[in-house]
Amino acid sequence: MSPANRNPEIRKDAVNNRTVILSPARSRRPSDFKSKSQAKPDSNPSSDGQPQCPFCAGNEHQCAPEIFRSPEDSTSDWKVRVIENLYPALSRDLKVKSDDDEYRHADVTSGDVSLGGFGFHDVIIESPVHSVHLPDLSASRIAGVLLAYKKRVEQLCAVDSISYVQVFKNHGASAGASMSHSHSQIIALPVIPSTASTRLNSMKEYHNQTGKCVLCNIHTNKLLIDESTHFISISPFASAFPFETWIIPRYHSSHYHELDEDKAIDLGGLLKLTLQKLSVQLNDPPYNYMIHTSPLQITSSQLPYTHWYIQIVPQLSTIGGFEMGTGCYINPVFPEDAAKILREVEMP
Amino acid sequence: MSPANRNPEIRKDAVNNRTVILSPARSRRPSDFKSKSQAKPDSNPSSDGQPQCPFCAGNEHQCAPEIFRSPEDSTSDWKVRVIENLYPALSRDLKVKSDDDEYRHADVTSGDVSLGGFGFHDVIIESPVHSVHLPDLSASRIAGVLLAYKKRVEQLCAVDSISYVQVFKNHGASAGASMSHSHSQIIALPVIPSTASTRLNSMKEYHNQTGKCVLCNIHTNKLLIDESTHFISISPFASAFPFETWIIPRYHSSHYHELDEDKAIDLGGLLKLTLQKLSVQLNDPPYNYMIHTSPLQITSSQLPYTHWYIQIVPQLSTIGGFEMGTGCYINPVFPEDAAKILREVEMP
Ligand SMILES: Nc1ncnc2c1ncn2[C@@H]1O[C@H](COP(=O)(O)OP(=O)(O)O[C@H]2O[C@H](CO)[C@@H](O)[C@H](O)[C@H]2O)[C@@H](O)[C@H]1O
Ligand SMILES: Nc1ncnc2c1ncn2[C@@H]1O[C@H](COP(=O)(O)OP(=O)(O)O[C@H]2O[C@H](CO)[C@@H](O)[C@H](O)[C@H]2O)[C@@H](O)[C@H]1O
Repeated sequence: MSPANRNPEIRKDAVNNRTVILSPARSRRPSDFKSKSQAKPDSNPSSDGQPQCPFCAGNEHQCAPEIFRSPEDSTSDWKVRVIENLYPALSRDLKVKSDDDEYRHADVTSGDVSLGGFGFHDVIIESPVHSVHLPDLSASRIAGVLLAYKKRVEQLCAVDSISYVQVFKNHGASAGASMSHSHSQIIALPVIPSTASTRLNSMKEYHNQTGKCVLCNIHTNKLLIDESTHFISISPFASAFPFETWIIPRYHSSHYHELDEDKAIDLGGLLKLTLQKLSVQLNDPPYNYMIHTSPLQITSSQLPYTHWYIQIVPQLSTIGGFEMGTGCYINPVFPEDAAKILREVEMP
Repeated sequence: MSPANRNPEIRKDAVNNRTVILSPARSRRPSDFKSKSQAKPDSNPSSDGQPQCPFCAGNEHQCAPEIFRSPEDSTSDWKVRVIENLYPALSRDLKVKSDDDEYRHADVTSGDVSLGGFGFHDVIIESPVHSVHLPDLSASRIAGVLLAYKKRVEQLCAVDSISYVQVFKNHGASAGASMSHSHSQIIALPVIPSTASTRLNSMKEYHNQTGKCVLCNIHTNKLLIDESTHFISISPFASAFPFETWIIPRYHSSHYHELDEDKAIDLGGLLKLTLQKLSVQLNDPPYNYMIHTSPLQITSSQLPYTHWYIQIVPQLSTIGGFEMGTGCYINPVFPEDAAKILREVEMP
């Protein structure tokens, strides 16, 4: 049976407890809107020959303050810079609340709760050169970016009132990016976001039932794309998006920032390969990736069942009211088919 | 203090237990991508003078089978048609599973679960004329669309294995629409989606604490936009999107399909006004609306705390990896400010 004639299926995984509808027939529907033009970054953002991008080498003074750079002692020859976001979503200057007045305002009659927007919002500039994108870098240069995430996460862990750290990357305008120069972001939150607590509960339930960690035990049969010494890349069983890909450590680890240098180089290689494959197969799509780690203050009893991973999502279509309303995504591509295609994609 | 200088705030409501970051500073960030062109529908989709849109009057034969039309006995002078979706996400032909083999496949070792994709996916054509959009219709014509939703939801309720019905509308390509002719959709699911069960739990918790229904009791102080005999429109306390608007019945009601004809006309008027205000203020933005009703088989003990409402979301920006990763949205517009603007918008 050709994939497009396959019956639809509703799937749920044990990692996120996420429901998706796999529906190949959907891919055939027509559209009378003109097709979305692939939003390409301005490769040369200058109008007068001088690069105007604040993330480019030479324009460091146009940026918000630097937190650190790598190599540490580099000057104009830096490879990675971690800087404050000039337009932060949260403010590092708001007074840290003590536990009991944490909620500035909790209205008992309405049930509404509000909290001062304390937190950190940083930008990681992945290369000094405007036209170089993350997968263009060598595995060890990508490892440098991954280790910059690690170092910054470790610094943020040291702040008492921070509960969760989200590392993420937006590439391309339809993936939300406002800047085309290769970068990622880190937001440190004083609360545990809903996806992280849902995942924690879901992983706990699996552990209660089986005595095992769900990601150590994940089925790769038909869903495996590639593997390296310490990591695998797979199409997840309940993929919410066409060609969604996860990179999972083969060793058990609750927190991303446990990554060491050796493993970072190995991960750099697999991340590079995965992004290159998606780029070749899907014609340089906009994409996001998110590092799903565990809340910072988990207890030792939670360590056996929490396991970090990276979720990579190429942005190929716009979601609609059904997804917004239900939280359930309609995906026209079965992950078995996506995995097979990505396993076999020929690299130029 | 001007709104853009206000400190960020983290908010959570008691309706959805949804966390949002309100961060006015974010609205000032620059972009080096060319601005997204407002995706306008083809106002005349024909190339040869004959309309080619299957939703237009005269092209009924190009559509999937009709379920009903309104008025019932109309011929070419129909006002609303409810039809099957030609590219359905779920299949009405899959055998309905009995309770115990409901899950076609539940893999104990991986925790993965899959279920045959049984369900219904319909389209509501809101007008026979291509260029007429929902808010262009009179309040009583909009009531006709709302009552068509009601009638179809009632039919779907009669199917044993259906647990939840999502009514939604996509307007404009960046809101996900593939068809520009004014329409909405209904998907009936054999499972309760995560947003609906989270909402149920959240409303229950509020009821346990206060003995009241959270939406009957909602604070409108500063957040009220408009009111009609039976409905109010508000900017929700924890708005996830700029100018997100809810229309809430002032009477207690768990299910959308309890709407009667009188109330439908009243709701038609307020929905028209709301969509017109958003269109004037935000320059005809793409938007989605979702009717958030309760699971069909709730018990009588759940009736006192469940209350349906409509969520309207203008699509003004693209979300990024932070929202995908955490489920927490960053909204640069405080709902108090949005409500004030929408209260005062001058209608032409
Ligand atoms: N001179 C400078 N110095 C320091 N920082 C600078 C700077 N100039 C710009 N910046 C910051 O650089 C960041 C670039 O980030 P991205 O391009 O990944 O997307 P952005 O955060 O704008 O929004 C996307 O991601 C967020 C989070 O997911 C979504 O809320 C949003 O809708 C989506 O468009 C911006 O956050 C901006 O504030
Ligand atoms: N001749 C015909 N007869 C009957 N039906 C016909 C038809 N021709 C087309 N259709 C159907 O009409 C519908 C039009 O729907 P919309 O424009 O609201 O968005 P669509 O469902 O395509 O996708 C958006 O909404 C869904 C659900 O939110 C998201 O999954 C998706 O990503 C987003 O683009 C389509 O579902 C299509 O299958």
